[in-house]
Amino acid sequence: MAPNARSSTAPARPSWSSALTHIEPNRILVRGYPIDELMGRVHFGDAIYLLLTGDLPSPSIGRLIEAILVSFIDHGVTPPSTLAARNAATTGASIRGAVAAGVVGFGRHYGGDILACRQRLDEGLALARRGETLSKAATELINRLVTAREIPPPGFGHRYHTTDPRATRLLQIAHDLESDHRYTQLIRAMEHALAEHPALQGRPMPINVDGAIAAVCGDLGLPPEVADALLIASRVPGLAAHVLEEQAREPPMRVIDPLSHDYDGPSERRLGPRRK
Amino acid sequence: MAPNARSSTAPARPSWSSALTHIEPNRILVRGYPIDELMGRVHFGDAIYLLLTGDLPSPSIGRLIEAILVSFIDHGVTPPSTLAARNAATTGASIRGAVAAGVVGFGRHYGGDILACRQRLDEGLALARRGETLSKAATELINRLVTAREIPPPGFGHRYHTTDPRATRLLQIAHDLESDHRYTQLIRAMEHALAEHPALQGRPMPINVDGAIAAVCGDLGLPPEVADALLIASRVPGLAAHVLEEQAREPPMRVIDPLSHDYDGPSERRLGPRRK
Amino acid sequence: MAPNARSSTAPARPSWSSALTHIEPNRILVRGYPIDELMGRVHFGDAIYLLLTGDLPSPSIGRLIEAILVSFIDHGVTPPSTLAARNAATTGASIRGAVAAGVVGFGRHYGGDILACRQRLDEGLALARRGETLSKAATELINRLVTAREIPPPGFGHRYHTTDPRATRLLQIAHDLESDHRYTQLIRAMEHALAEHPALQGRPMPINVDGAIAAVCGDLGLPPEVADALLIASRVPGLAAHVLEEQAREPPMRVIDPLSHDYDGPSERRLGPRRK
Amino acid sequence: MAPNARSSTAPARPSWSSALTHIEPNRILVRGYPIDELMGRVHFGDAIYLLLTGDLPSPSIGRLIEAILVSFIDHGVTPPSTLAARNAATTGASIRGAVAAGVVGFGRHYGGDILACRQRLDEGLALARRGETLSKAATELINRLVTAREIPPPGFGHRYHTTDPRATRLLQIAHDLESDHRYTQLIRAMEHALAEHPALQGRPMPINVDGAIAAVCGDLGLPPEVADALLIASRVPGLAAHVLEEQAREPPMRVIDPLSHDYDGPSERRLGPRRK
Repeated sequence: MAPNARSSTAPARPSWSSALTHIEPNRILVRGYPIDELMGRVHFGDAIYLLLTGDLPSPSIGRLIEAILVSFIDHGVTPPSTLAARNAATTGASIRGAVAAGVVGFGRHYGGDILACRQRLDEGLALARRGETLSKAATELINRLVTAREIPPPGFGHRYHTTDPRATRLLQIAHDLESDHRYTQLIRAMEHALAEHPALQGRPMPINVDGAIAAVCGDLGLPPEVADALLIASRVPGLAAHVLEEQAREPPMRVIDPLSHDYDGPSERRLGPRRK
Repeated sequence: MAPNARSSTAPARPSWSSALTHIEPNRILVRGYPIDELMGRVHFGDAIYLLLTGDLPSPSIGRLIEAILVSFIDHGVTPPSTLAARNAATTGASIRGAVAAGVVGFGRHYGGDILACRQRLDEGLALARRGETLSKAATELINRLVTAREIPPPGFGHRYHTTDPRATRLLQIAHDLESDHRYTQLIRAMEHALAEHPALQGRPMPINVDGAIAAVCGDLGLPPEVADALLIASRVPGLAAHVLEEQAREPPMRVIDPLSHDYDGPSERRLGPRRK
Repeated sequence: MAPNARSSTAPARPSWSSALTHIEPNRILVRGYPIDELMGRVHFGDAIYLLLTGDLPSPSIGRLIEAILVSFIDHGVTPPSTLAARNAATTGASIRGAVAAGVVGFGRHYGGDILACRQRLDEGLALARRGETLSKAATELINRLVTAREIPPPGFGHRYHTTDPRATRLLQIAHDLESDHRYTQLIRAMEHALAEHPALQGRPMPINVDGAIAAVCGDLGLPPEVADALLIASRVPGLAAHVLEEQAREPPMRVIDPLSHDYDGPSERRLGPRRK
Repeated sequence: MAPNARSSTAPARPSWSSALTHIEPNRILVRGYPIDELMGRVHFGDAIYLLLTGDLPSPSIGRLIEAILVSFIDHGVTPPSTLAARNAATTGASIRGAVAAGVVGFGRHYGGDILACRQRLDEGLALARRGETLSKAATELINRLVTAREIPPPGFGHRYHTTDPRATRLLQIAHDLESDHRYTQLIRAMEHALAEHPALQGRPMPINVDGAIAAVCGDLGLPPEVADALLIASRVPGLAAHVLEEQAREPPMRVIDPLSHDYDGPSERRLGPRRK
């Protein structure tokens, strides 16, 4: 039947299914949990994990997920995706439009590394399964990447940082929670192998936050797509904050200079002792 | 000087400022706090509030913000923005592209109500400041809206629910935390006035989640744009989950039927006693 | 019935209708015309007009529409929407994603003026219908806009140009084709009134391309939304060209400086005599 | 220097260059041509080709490009990208936002086939360069694709059509203009080999419009990215027309049924004799 013919009685169509959220009048169940039960009792980070994986996280895993979500929340005005959002904002686009412009501005070179990084880590773990130590597997993997001119490898290096504080902290939390296993051990070994490689002396290539997230999510058994989703969820509040600031402080249709700007927010401060 | 002339020595350009995040090599300060200090010690919901407003929330306010963020996280397959994201996903678009399609699909009729709702609430509060009780102000405001055929008013009514469990719960949490004040009192009074209006009998128009969020954020002193940003941050994980599910379970280029589908996720379940 | 219940036999649903394109196996009719008949015999500009309005344009109107479509095709690297697209492109986003980032970056201050401009023109024409000459209506309208601090008015002024060559040319073509009527006469009168206004001396506020398009489309009887659609259709090839150039010539993740750049394309050249 | 330090005197920065459009006060040169000279004298399709490639097309090539641009302009309500745009539109999103939602909804399975199709064609041409006839190269290529389960191959097959009228017509125009060469000859040979393959009997897999465009652009010496850009430029007016119709005819927040709809536009009609 032609696809746009008028049907007075539609034949039964194959139903399809979603396992995410059940909607009935006056009831919303997110992976089975009533949403009004989750509200006020479960943190947003836990609810994100629940929705993406199907279950609430244990307290340890929940803490790691929250740390991932906090890690990528913003990186100032210079990331191109943030500049895309600000440029959309200066034309008077809606918050949604400007945030969307920032979300599509996450290409494979920025926040799009997770999949590639996981693929390299999987290569390395395959080498290790064939009997090599993680250290040797890491060295061999780095050699392959140098030969393939894939340097810095996905998950390593950064435009500004020689040590990415977010990666350091995330791997530390994973370690403290005894959540670090093969993936994180391998990525640490790769960082070491990079630092030792004779052809790469003088080029700092620390694990970056993408790499740390890819490794930690690997050890948590989360597919790379879920890690991707966590990155997007993390950065959207940052994009929104930049859009709001742009539209509140700056005149419309201005030239946004990515080089000559400064920071005029709160000075450095520390969390008080109350927050654990 | 022509805007694209080559400058061998660029004159000093006016610098501009951002108060969000300070970046230096190896240091990232989000509103002054080192990000590696926030990670593992501050929840994602708190970090979102910090970025948007400039300070960490008190425990009460933090709980309310987390509840807002959880409330809007997903609403199943039928919201048009979710269908926009799924339709983009079925063509094989990237996660980012498909999520972005969902984000722009938040027009003024869906999740775009916050500003309009706040404007009506502000009208009502202005009436109350002139000496009327909130109850009378609500009644007069509803009369105006009926005359202007702005029924249901922004913040009221829902396609599926006659009582929106998310609104009920959010207002309850605000009440328990003694965070409810003029805005939430007014919106409750408006709900009552709508139920009592002679011309609107038989048409349930409960406060919906947009209205509850608009009122609660009003009492928290947050501008409507910040409430908007919280809505977007809340729904993005939901959009991502739908995109991931679409691309994992379904064949590409399928016809996504918004009417004939069902839920096959976990059955209804409750949180255990451990979670407060 | 709950919206997501499983239906083994779906009852008849109300069909809805679209008047744009009829699809059957092996047949595609665009507003009734077989697409393979349009291809090779009708220009793209004519097909756009056909799709948006329901009929092919007369040769005169077709020429005007083509001129509109050519007028907005690109404006170099500085428009914020183009910078949004280039910033998305430098992260390695897909062409589609980067172009989309540019499309949402058309807020009400850039290319979003058409509706506002038409509203002011309609105000002016209403004044003229009450017996005033267009010249007087224009002066009064400008006075209102000065009082309302809506200066420059939508459709007037430009960041770089004191005379917008696209507006000048478009109005000239309309005049040559005898397509200029009340709207274009009024906007010319407004330009004159702006130049004569005592409070605005020394501030060039020429009709810009948005204003010219708004006026010409008004005289063609096209609603502002159609004019909007023509603008978007016009600029998308420009956005695509910038994305392609960015990804072909420049390294990924570069800082895109909107101030220090130059043009290295073909030198100025003229069309030969063959093209009418 | 830290990237966000304040610079009172900015040192010279490396300028970068764009070869697309030169902007000076009151002058706009698109690939060297003054825009006001192009307007009214050059068709939109020619201007698109000029911007993307650097030169105006010859009349033959111009005709082919216009045919490509017309071919993909719309395909009714069922393409997922069009449904993404309509779903965004029903929430009240701006035209730009809704069109952008449709633009990102062109994933690799829909309109994203050009690159993959060109890669297969290049494989086939490489086989032919090694001495095989195109016919043999086509057969071998099809065999490879059958083995790799890449069936239908990119550029072949369609959800609704057993003969894609747009592909048939485009290849015919190319033939009439003597623009068809190796790429189009090969794709025709592949279509023949698919029809002859013993394992694929009974499964019509005609050249679809993507394949025809990929082949024709190959013979025109256009890179696949340019073909991609032409597809996007072609479909954007279609997306805009759907968004406008949705917002003009339908109530907001409606359920858009992709199965039960019909066409109520003009009946089939033919072009008059005047249009060549």
